[in-house]
Amino acid sequence: MTFPYEALAAFAQQLLERSGVPSGKANLVAVSLTASNLRGVDSHGLQLLPQYLEQIKAGNIQPESDGHVISENGACLLFDGERAFGQHVAAVCSDHAVRLSQAHGLGMAVARESNHYGAAAFWSQRIADAGCIGITICNASSLVAPWQGKQPRLGTNPISVALPGPRRWLLDMATTTVAMNKIVNASLSGRETIPPGWAMDAEGNPTTSTAVAIKGLLMPLGGYKGSGLAMMVEILCAVLSGGAMSTEVGGVYNRAKPMRTSQMFLSIDPTRFLPMEDFVERMTRLVAMMKSSAPAEGFDEVMVAGDPEWRIEEQRRRDGIPLSDGAWTALREAAVSLNVPLPSPAS
Amino acid sequence: MTFPYEALAAFAQQLLERSGVPSGKANLVAVSLTASNLRGVDSHGLQLLPQYLEQIKAGNIQPESDGHVISENGACLLFDGERAFGQHVAAVCSDHAVRLSQAHGLGMAVARESNHYGAAAFWSQRIADAGCIGITICNASSLVAPWQGKQPRLGTNPISVALPGPRRWLLDMATTTVAMNKIVNASLSGRETIPPGWAMDAEGNPTTSTAVAIKGLLMPLGGYKGSGLAMMVEILCAVLSGGAMSTEVGGVYNRAKPMRTSQMFLSIDPTRFLPMEDFVERMTRLVAMMKSSAPAEGFDEVMVAGDPEWRIEEQRRRDGIPLSDGAWTALREAAVSLNVPLPSPAS
Repeated sequence: MTFPYEALAAFAQQLLERSGVPSGKANLVAVSLTASNLRGVDSHGLQLLPQYLEQIKAGNIQPESDGHVISENGACLLFDGERAFGQHVAAVCSDHAVRLSQAHGLGMAVARESNHYGAAAFWSQRIADAGCIGITICNASSLVAPWQGKQPRLGTNPISVALPGPRRWLLDMATTTVAMNKIVNASLSGRETIPPGWAMDAEGNPTTSTAVAIKGLLMPLGGYKGSGLAMMVEILCAVLSGGAMSTEVGGVYNRAKPMRTSQMFLSIDPTRFLPMEDFVERMTRLVAMMKSSAPAEGFDEVMVAGDPEWRIEEQRRRDGIPLSDGAWTALREAAVSLNVPLPSPAS
Repeated sequence: MTFPYEALAAFAQQLLERSGVPSGKANLVAVSLTASNLRGVDSHGLQLLPQYLEQIKAGNIQPESDGHVISENGACLLFDGERAFGQHVAAVCSDHAVRLSQAHGLGMAVARESNHYGAAAFWSQRIADAGCIGITICNASSLVAPWQGKQPRLGTNPISVALPGPRRWLLDMATTTVAMNKIVNASLSGRETIPPGWAMDAEGNPTTSTAVAIKGLLMPLGGYKGSGLAMMVEILCAVLSGGAMSTEVGGVYNRAKPMRTSQMFLSIDPTRFLPMEDFVERMTRLVAMMKSSAPAEGFDEVMVAGDPEWRIEEQRRRDGIPLSDGAWTALREAAVSLNVPLPSPAS
């Protein structure tokens, strides 16, 4: 099933509003999730929405909560999410980081007691849209064994960096080989196997079975380095926030306890270092230097981070967003039970 | 050949002073390089010193240069290294970053026209020793093809993060599978092969030959993610600094042009978020959570970043630092030509 972006975003907003989410927050969550589908990152798109709705029922997401600033000290702000939507916490904290960087050149907001915030890129890009370099990272439910271990202790702990100015480069990566949602996505799409290197079974043995991987562990990116990056994220988010660390964090698929994730938002004003037009010119030149490399065997061209998603976005804005059978089934069921009309498919 | 730490550091300092390096800078370079050997990171230790001495002769390192602050704007400082020793630039900029974070909570110094600064961990740790979270990254000579490419466009572009308080965790990693110096080290140690996944030949084909790899390309960590992290480093260092980018950067093994590397130093005052004793207690607890995982097949225990090096440091402080034949031969030749007495081996 393929739908226009606007129809899906409006549909998602209605599902949220009927679940008791105030209109502004419902819009923020709906738009940010649908934007991820638009970019082709379906793992962080609307397939998460039925999970969010269940988490509202479970009390783990408190849709009316606004959270509050615990402290502001120089360029540093500490925020208590009070189980609000992660997207709400992310929007508020991104904007605080931008404000602080306008005053100091740098601004850093760290939130605790937050929830899943969707794709990290949406929030780094929010900072970038305000004219600053945006960096966001967050801890997540334990699905990864630390290097040399076989029990889950770390999350996929993603890193996203976005830049002001025209679209040149946008990084959003889990510190595992892949994000867990990619395995969920494989399952929802009915793919029985996943590539080697993605996951281990519950005993720590490598697996290519989608079903086994869902109950198993993700592999850290490049072994000890991925584990090191995931710890860096854990420290800059959860150690600093005073919030839940490692196995204390819940998860978007876990109803038994609140997610309690911590998130960090860093804003850097590049104009404290050089004029914006120079920044944009240098980024344009740097990306051109990458693309000037001859392509490796099997590739037609060199792409940089962000390129694949922007191309899909252009195509999906035109042709609509395809949903997997699994994702659409869950959304339709939610719509029926909430008495929300289904969106019209793309023509 | 094995030498006590103090004898090697003093020997290195003499080699530098006889090459026209002022005493303070000679001490800084000698101590920081020897500290890397002490930690077992021989790739970034004294085997670099003969290269540095050649770079002084070539005019690419200007040993009397101090560099200068170009601008200071809020928490952001821009520095021109003026081809000074990278270690000098790193010490000055680390200290500026700390000072700025004492004023604002965050401080960021970005340097251009610098030189190789040895192991990044020495400088993140310098910031940590001043009570802050220290992060440093730098661009480096192009030895890595961008993802989907086969021509060198990116450096090993390392990331190091160090923490104040007792030794718990210390990250220092290239964004390639390994640092180029590890391949040089394999060569100096007479090892003819390297593990798969480290490098490609000059045509972009994977190789396990040390000799071929030295003339070839390093592989980015985990493919497109390593490439993305390397670009992040290039942007936060070289785009912001206004200095050399990508193929414009020289290299420690390249006499034909100045290195012109850019380096970034970020200091975060954790006490703007929580009391230092809470930070230390939480780090202790987080590391214990990692170590509570059962070890995977083939391992006795879970270690975190920093553990292997601190163990080697303890042993080498006691038993001395072994130098490879290749590294020792080059240092001895330099000593003979500079008329510097050789250090006494460990007893």
